[in-house]
Amino acid sequence: MAATTAMNRRVILKDYVEGYPREEHMELLPGVEIPLRLTGDEPSGSVLVKNLYLSCDPYMRPRMSRPVRQSYTSAFVPGSVITGYGVSRVLDSSHPSLNPGDLVWGFTGWEDYSVIKPPASNLLSKITHHSGNKDGVPLSYYTGILGMPGLTAYVGFHEICAPQPGESVFVSAASGAVGQLVGQFAKLAGCGPVVGSAGSAEKVGLLTTRFSFDAAFNYKDEEESADLSAALARRFPEGIDIYFENVGGAMLDAALRNMRVHGRVAVCGLISQYNKADADKDAVRSLDAVVTKRLRVQGFIEPDHKHLYPQYEAWVMPYIRDGTIKYVESVAEGLESAPAALIGLFHGRNVGKQLVRVAHEDAE
Amino acid sequence: MAATTAMNRRVILKDYVEGYPREEHMELLPGVEIPLRLTGDEPSGSVLVKNLYLSCDPYMRPRMSRPVRQSYTSAFVPGSVITGYGVSRVLDSSHPSLNPGDLVWGFTGWEDYSVIKPPASNLLSKITHHSGNKDGVPLSYYTGILGMPGLTAYVGFHEICAPQPGESVFVSAASGAVGQLVGQFAKLAGCGPVVGSAGSAEKVGLLTTRFSFDAAFNYKDEEESADLSAALARRFPEGIDIYFENVGGAMLDAALRNMRVHGRVAVCGLISQYNKADADKDAVRSLDAVVTKRLRVQGFIEPDHKHLYPQYEAWVMPYIRDGTIKYVESVAEGLESAPAALIGLFHGRNVGKQLVRVAHEDAE
Repeated sequence: MAATTAMNRRVILKDYVEGYPREEHMELLPGVEIPLRLTGDEPSGSVLVKNLYLSCDPYMRPRMSRPVRQSYTSAFVPGSVITGYGVSRVLDSSHPSLNPGDLVWGFTGWEDYSVIKPPASNLLSKITHHSGNKDGVPLSYYTGILGMPGLTAYVGFHEICAPQPGESVFVSAASGAVGQLVGQFAKLAGCGPVVGSAGSAEKVGLLTTRFSFDAAFNYKDEEESADLSAALARRFPEGIDIYFENVGGAMLDAALRNMRVHGRVAVCGLISQYNKADADKDAVRSLDAVVTKRLRVQGFIEPDHKHLYPQYEAWVMPYIRDGTIKYVESVAEGLESAPAALIGLFHGRNVGKQLVRVAHEDAE
Repeated sequence: MAATTAMNRRVILKDYVEGYPREEHMELLPGVEIPLRLTGDEPSGSVLVKNLYLSCDPYMRPRMSRPVRQSYTSAFVPGSVITGYGVSRVLDSSHPSLNPGDLVWGFTGWEDYSVIKPPASNLLSKITHHSGNKDGVPLSYYTGILGMPGLTAYVGFHEICAPQPGESVFVSAASGAVGQLVGQFAKLAGCGPVVGSAGSAEKVGLLTTRFSFDAAFNYKDEEESADLSAALARRFPEGIDIYFENVGGAMLDAALRNMRVHGRVAVCGLISQYNKADADKDAVRSLDAVVTKRLRVQGFIEPDHKHLYPQYEAWVMPYIRDGTIKYVESVAEGLESAPAALIGLFHGRNVGKQLVRVAHEDAE
């Protein structure tokens, strides 16, 4: 007979973060017994899920700061559970289109079990293509290539950058959850050269051996903006048509100096800047290039483009199944490892998409 | 009997400029006798013109710097005549569509008479609407509202910013050749509030009394980026939908902090930065707003959009004739005053469009 209660552990934010997040900014609370059914007190449309995988994403860092500015995501609340993308199994549901046993991906909590209330529960996507990993599509991919980072790469590259065959492409943080896909999408689109930067020899190696980049370099070998600019000039003697921006700061400055006329910069994220106070953020001084080269610099976030997910999934799934597109993940084991995994993102400790396995897929 | 020769004076760049341009960077050479006809040695399609008005424009400053970077205009050549936009009368022509007596606007030299060779002569636009100032359309307007700055304002606002009625608009350098038009175009498009910044009480006054801005302020009262940001926040409590960028640096940083979600920044020019060495350019640190607010920051230049001129001229001419749109000019008298007039731009000495009258319209 199935258990009717379980112990639920939660990871909370203890206080707002300044600078780099550390383990003491978060806390894993001891398990509290909860019912494994909705109690009836939740609003109609609520869903009780068991969390299987949690996603560690750079955008979570700005949510840890004391809220001062308008942002696209609201700040976390100290004392409350951290939230983010994840893959979960539905245990109980009063939502009309979600049933017990369904696998879903979407916004959930950093805990063993979550009650997801409307309207958030309306954003949970049912996973229909999964057949127990037998088809070579790991369930964890719904935190990455088949989840928010995948759609981010697709929208950012195909919609925002509007690539043409033969155009040159530069991707920063190129081995990350999004960057590794942008490089592969660019090659599939006939672009070239496609060059990526990353922060270790291992990652740089992956870019050319596994993710089909034409060339790659370690940005840590070129610390100053002028060095970065020279590094880009060597790899793009005719300039950069498309820069897929994941890091910001000195790299953005260097890329601007190397853009070609009518180039496009898709600004996906600025991970190098997230742990800096406003006054300490890197100076970008090469904005004259925006005029002289008639650049389009455009920010975007995945939630604005959710309607493109079915189109993206239909396009990418065959490439995953036939091995054309590769996806590399770093999997941390257990909810207790989630804080360190998230922190590691900002020190570049992850190789590929960082995620946390909270429970095995067939766990009760 | 008409003279067959004339004395031609020329303004040359003496050497590349670092920092602010000064009079000694340029020189008015004494007149040299030239024939008032083409000699036959010029390539077919050449045109001999008498220059009537010369335009002083901010983009000319980057052309005075030693060329180091790709730019949309090539650098001036020390020892050679300075070139720029102007209004001229054709004296002799081997160009199939230009005839003696035609008035033209386009790219010419800072001298009394210019021989304009193909392909530049193909870009000269015949002025067909002019009827001796009797219709209230001064010929000098073809250096401003009816010339490059006018098309710049039109393209930048209507094409790049894609304004919707009710959207809020901020214009920097708002009393200048382009800015004064953007404010008026924004009001005609039903935008509001439309707010401008300028650098003197006189200019600020013009913005609201003559150019139909809803509000205006003197940026010199708010020197720091934080002050500028607060000044904008007071005038745009709900944020800025459209920023028409003419100055760059601290103002761009402040505007980014005050943009609304899905805002657009049309980058027309960065006059505050043109006299600074690369390392001294103002730091822009608020680029996180590009992602969090999903901004589009787009540079543009008028030559890319020349094909829209007929559409623009047809649209704007009735507004000029009926007085709906006002245009304010600062006219410097004589070729000898051209260097000081150009220099004055970078110190904000001009009120409205700065131009130079080289000769009266009916002069031989």
